Amino acid sequence: MSSLLIAQAGGPSCALNATLKGVIEEAKKHSKIDKIYGALGGAGGILDKNLVDLGNQSQRFYELLSSTPASVIGTSRRPLFEDDFQSIIKTLKELNVEYFFYNGGNGSMATCNKLFQALKEDIKIIGIPKTIDNDIAVIDHCPGFGSAARYMAVTTSEIAQDIAAMPIHVCIVEAMGRNAGWITAASALANKSGKGPHLIYVPERPFIKEQFLSEVEKMFKEMGGVLVVVSEGITDEKGRPIVPPMIVPGSKDPYVGDVAVYLAQEVFTKLGIKARSEKPGIALRASVTHQSVVDIEEARRLGALAVKSAVEGKTGYMVGIKRVSSCPYLTEDILVPLSQVATIEQKLPDRYINEKGNGITKEFLDYCSPLVGELPEFAGDYLVI
Amino acid sequence: MSSLLIAQAGGPSCALNATLKGVIEEAKKHSKIDKIYGALGGAGGILDKNLVDLGNQSQRFYELLSSTPASVIGTSRRPLFEDDFQSIIKTLKELNVEYFFYNGGNGSMATCNKLFQALKEDIKIIGIPKTIDNDIAVIDHCPGFGSAARYMAVTTSEIAQDIAAMPIHVCIVEAMGRNAGWITAASALANKSGKGPHLIYVPERPFIKEQFLSEVEKMFKEMGGVLVVVSEGITDEKGRPIVPPMIVPGSKDPYVGDVAVYLAQEVFTKLGIKARSEKPGIALRASVTHQSVVDIEEARRLGALAVKSAVEGKTGYMVGIKRVSSCPYLTEDILVPLSQVATIEQKLPDRYINEKGNGITKEFLDYCSPLVGELPEFAGDYLVI
Repeated sequence: MSSLLIAQAGGPSCALNATLKGVIEEAKKHSKIDKIYGALGGAGGILDKNLVDLGNQSQRFYELLSSTPASVIGTSRRPLFEDDFQSIIKTLKELNVEYFFYNGGNGSMATCNKLFQALKEDIKIIGIPKTIDNDIAVIDHCPGFGSAARYMAVTTSEIAQDIAAMPIHVCIVEAMGRNAGWITAASALANKSGKGPHLIYVPERPFIKEQFLSEVEKMFKEMGGVLVVVSEGITDEKGRPIVPPMIVPGSKDPYVGDVAVYLAQEVFTKLGIKARSEKPGIALRASVTHQSVVDIEEARRLGALAVKSAVEGKTGYMVGIKRVSSCPYLTEDILVPLSQVATIEQKLPDRYINEKGNGITKEFLDYCSPLVGELPEFAGDYLVI
Repeated sequence: MSSLLIAQAGGPSCALNATLKGVIEEAKKHSKIDKIYGALGGAGGILDKNLVDLGNQSQRFYELLSSTPASVIGTSRRPLFEDDFQSIIKTLKELNVEYFFYNGGNGSMATCNKLFQALKEDIKIIGIPKTIDNDIAVIDHCPGFGSAARYMAVTTSEIAQDIAAMPIHVCIVEAMGRNAGWITAASALANKSGKGPHLIYVPERPFIKEQFLSEVEKMFKEMGGVLVVVSEGITDEKGRPIVPPMIVPGSKDPYVGDVAVYLAQEVFTKLGIKARSEKPGIALRASVTHQSVVDIEEARRLGALAVKSAVEGKTGYMVGIKRVSSCPYLTEDILVPLSQVATIEQKLPDRYINEKGNGITKEFLDYCSPLVGELPEFAGDYLVI
């Protein structure tokens, strides 16, 4: 008999628990797995032996798991040092863990790879991708992204209806994704009826404030309400954040942000046009209300695939999805060596960004649409005047 | 034969179109109404004779109406002057309008009352309440509020799951409602499992920054992640906004806001604790995804009631809802003289705010809960460790 242990790392998503469900369901099919451990609060849960038995929970717990946002076992951004790796390995062996799963982003895949290098065949180690940012290399897309993209597309389409109904201001929506513009780009799906977003700025292109102001001014004169979506991470030509980070003596991390607030103030003070900003922030990654059906199904499937692969003796891989076609949407599940994805950041390719750097191409919409699912239709588009 | 005309005013809600649907459906039942006019873009649509025939739209238009946010005919904040009233009356008579409906907040009910005073029995005039802010007097609550409250409660409960899964920072959510704390208070419904919101600040009580910082610091030391909800309109002991409005020469309105950003920066710089802010903003009032079933049903019913009442010869009233009991939720539809609601602002009563001024009482939860409906349950609350 042997044990399985899963830990999560990095910012939550609303597909993380679906992956956990897939892991639990598959593990229960294998009689040689007699314990399904979950590390509470990320890798720290292994270090502190703070674990939970995921195989013996109530029916209600399992029923609610996929539609619960964030992480029921908790996650963390705690950095791991050399000593920590030795402690983790010791604990895994003490617990008779034969299968270890680490569910996180590209940084976590590096951690996972390091453990694999240290343990080789002793313990089967599989990484499971998770990030709303969609910035993991090799794979087509990552569990968590589809739902974040759906949130962005649906919410932007709803805001667009509001702006169109009372077109008196410039509205600037800030999207998550500091280095990669995938989530920001997903807002482009909302613009089916020309109601916006009218301008979209991703961090892959330099943001020229003067150009932005002149574009906004021109559009506002033409049509009244203007809807803009910007990534929280846009930078200028020299790669500097648009809003300088606030550094506090004694604090490790600076206070970063709020670029939409700053740009709304710029529109108001420089152009004399009413402006406001919206920043759903964490609501975006925590919204089960906006879960994408495809995303949740894939998250669950990859959790199960990780267990299946480990039981078959595979180790040192990350499970992932390869796209076969967009229309119809067809995919293949794949295993990628951890070394190929560790710490590599996958940004939005050039072909998805328009030439002016203020919008998204149709090619991206074709890519993103099946991950997001159908968007709501609105009566205004059928109004005959 | 006679005509009906409806216009909307003020900020959109996601129940405005449901009211419109109620008006149209009821109007179609009365054979003496041969035209159902909608004013495009608020009262300005009457002044500019910019109208739409709402009685002759496609089946798809009617099907989608209630689940479309904002307003399909558009609304506005355009102020009306003495001359405008005369023009409106002239146009209503030209169009053979016998029934006029104005759908808006307490300011719009004043406009409606002024038209009633001028027209008396010539044209039947009925106001229909609409505001996410829930600040109209006499009535128990207002169409649009239930859905905004549901957005706030659901979204806060989802954010609370995220904070609990990675409790590393103070998260400050900004809620709409500049003078009245109804929407902010609705976030309290989220706190079923102690995951927050932990502190709630409404504009009805002075906001003492030093007290806020000390409360946040104490809580963060005890539990890590702290979830705070603040109204966009909180003011200090002297009634001054926490963030001074930005005035631009030549601009009529100042730039107001962003109190959550400011408070997050204060937490970070003064306490050295990681902090972030979220501001759903317009997403809150435009979200059909979070429509409350009760709210939409009531919005539609009041639209129909307005038409029924006018056809029966009533004029000079606003339709509204009176509560009979909360559990079970029972209400009565009422007619309130427009003079009793015009421009009066209904704030959150004292009994709904806790003594410390940093939270909401159970009495408010009992009031608000039936308007919002069931909230999602999460697996974490069933996890046995």
